[in-house]
Amino acid sequence: MTFGIDDLPVRDELRGKSPYGAPQLDVPVRLNTNENPYPLPEPLVERITERVREAARHLNRYPDRDAVELRTALAEYLTKTSGHPVGVDNVWAANGSNEVIQQLLQTFGGPGRTAIGFEPSYSMHGLISRGTGTGWISGPRNEDFTIDLAAAEKAVAEHRPDVVFVTTPNNPTGNAVPPETVLALYEAAQAAGPSMVVVDEAYIEFSHGDSLLRLIEGRPHLVVSRTMSKAFGAAGLRLGYLAAHPAVVDAVQLVRLPYHLSAITQATALAALEHTDTLLGYVERLKAERDRLVAELRALGYEVTESDANFVQFGRFEDAHTVWRKILDRGVLVRDNGVPGWLRVTAGTPAENDAFLDAVREVKKEQST
Amino acid sequence: MTFGIDDLPVRDELRGKSPYGAPQLDVPVRLNTNENPYPLPEPLVERITERVREAARHLNRYPDRDAVELRTALAEYLTKTSGHPVGVDNVWAANGSNEVIQQLLQTFGGPGRTAIGFEPSYSMHGLISRGTGTGWISGPRNEDFTIDLAAAEKAVAEHRPDVVFVTTPNNPTGNAVPPETVLALYEAAQAAGPSMVVVDEAYIEFSHGDSLLRLIEGRPHLVVSRTMSKAFGAAGLRLGYLAAHPAVVDAVQLVRLPYHLSAITQATALAALEHTDTLLGYVERLKAERDRLVAELRALGYEVTESDANFVQFGRFEDAHTVWRKILDRGVLVRDNGVPGWLRVTAGTPAENDAFLDAVREVKKEQST
Repeated sequence: MTFGIDDLPVRDELRGKSPYGAPQLDVPVRLNTNENPYPLPEPLVERITERVREAARHLNRYPDRDAVELRTALAEYLTKTSGHPVGVDNVWAANGSNEVIQQLLQTFGGPGRTAIGFEPSYSMHGLISRGTGTGWISGPRNEDFTIDLAAAEKAVAEHRPDVVFVTTPNNPTGNAVPPETVLALYEAAQAAGPSMVVVDEAYIEFSHGDSLLRLIEGRPHLVVSRTMSKAFGAAGLRLGYLAAHPAVVDAVQLVRLPYHLSAITQATALAALEHTDTLLGYVERLKAERDRLVAELRALGYEVTESDANFVQFGRFEDAHTVWRKILDRGVLVRDNGVPGWLRVTAGTPAENDAFLDAVREVKKEQST
Repeated sequence: MTFGIDDLPVRDELRGKSPYGAPQLDVPVRLNTNENPYPLPEPLVERITERVREAARHLNRYPDRDAVELRTALAEYLTKTSGHPVGVDNVWAANGSNEVIQQLLQTFGGPGRTAIGFEPSYSMHGLISRGTGTGWISGPRNEDFTIDLAAAEKAVAEHRPDVVFVTTPNNPTGNAVPPETVLALYEAAQAAGPSMVVVDEAYIEFSHGDSLLRLIEGRPHLVVSRTMSKAFGAAGLRLGYLAAHPAVVDAVQLVRLPYHLSAITQATALAALEHTDTLLGYVERLKAERDRLVAELRALGYEVTESDANFVQFGRFEDAHTVWRKILDRGVLVRDNGVPGWLRVTAGTPAENDAFLDAVREVKKEQST
């Protein structure tokens, strides 16, 4: 027997667990982690190297702890794309939206407190809740993966959670949550708490609808979280951010690790924000490809959940994992999220999506013979 | 009244708190945060831009979640500088040693558990303990800031903490902890626990003595934490790491946020590790300047704590904060860490240290007239 994790004095709840993460397999077509398939354009790559060169010349100094220049640029982006004024005091940034969520839970959740999400949804909400000692409540969804408002309101009233997560568009199902539902949940959360409502808009740029940023005004317990991983094509950068009442931004600074955001990260994100128009052009291409995937999968006879994201959930399968494996055998990696009967495919380039659809057609043909 | 933090449903223990961090003042000579005064050499800046350019071309993809190339390079650095074999499986990296410590406390501390440190020491150990719900125990030191081993062993036996922090060289006092003391504390912690012993070696490259890396072999509850902020002159990069038994590295992966370390951070750190010899040359210069500061401050009649770090603690003052202010008035920012009667100055360039010594001489003259 080699000495392993369980021989260490780790916390009881970690015993027997394995780390979160999709398998990183080396296959020709990777459509499993909702990455943007378009590499950054070369002029942006050059702009990043220019900004990083300048930052590297001062790398012996700690970074701007408050990331003011970056938060200002993010606020300008949000203002421009949402049409609602967002200021630097409304914005906070961290290493990926996971760290944003962790800071929110350290501030508003934690031991003796609880958070609720409506599952299936982004599984890190529950995992980070547990990691911060926050009790996790799994709220319900309808069979079609929409939020059952009456049941959700009831769960909020009953459990009085300190934090309510609403993911829109939802991951892994793809559907957006109607603004009226979010508003009703906010009201329910205020009546039960008051508790914080965190709207995770990681995929909002791919949506047919608008961001809920406009709801922040006058609602100090509402937080919208965002990421540069998807629409900005910068999953490798790890830059998440939030928009909320300035008091929320002040509050998370009580728990953030000092100098959490490196000078290099800040420089790279600032460069990307200079190229917003080009990057949002790629988003338009991906939305068209997403719509094509929905249409073609339906034409093949699959059930497909409405998608406002850069991915599509399709089914139903008696044994989703076997279908996942058969698609993988054809060189295409999709995601088996553990939603019984369903798989998720990220919208890739037209060629990648063709390869995926060809693989699915072959699997379907094989199964029907 | 404007709506503020205390109007939000933040955790009770955060009420009335303010964020950690030294004042960032714009003065000519900043010797307050133990930064390395030497900017990265231009060939390294160029190497960083090359590596970042390459990483930016794949930035649409998530980074290597396990940072294998970087951990391999860090292991090689540790092996080379310590003379003891360290492998990739012994090493873990995160966004600054603060995040390393946070991950360790999420794994081995947390609600219902406790951690101890011997204060004054690096105040983030206590702050991150509280941030992770870990009870914090402030252990004793002698009047001369050495660890009182008998008292420390007694505290460990009495409180049976789950995590024991030993900072060597200690911050903010500067003195190193003898290896025999660390070994005795490790034994005491095993008898009381077993509990984890985290040796924070953030400043070890500046020490007259050796790293305690050689003690890891056969001691699976010992963790050595390190940073690239000081000796590597890369405070802006936020790259901390640890060396320990492979089971510890496996365990922290249960709590790390997935993809916590950006592709840009990994690329920049790898570039810096290619230039280790040049950077360690700067360390030698800083050690000589540190020794000069100790000697000149003593010649001026000050008490100076033995220093194995890139900073010097000097005193004693009836009112340290007033002296801090008077030195600042002369354009030199040092650190008032709240250790009654003492101030801390970072070893800067020879010119910066001259400016500091001139300021101190003036303040001393003014006070004696």
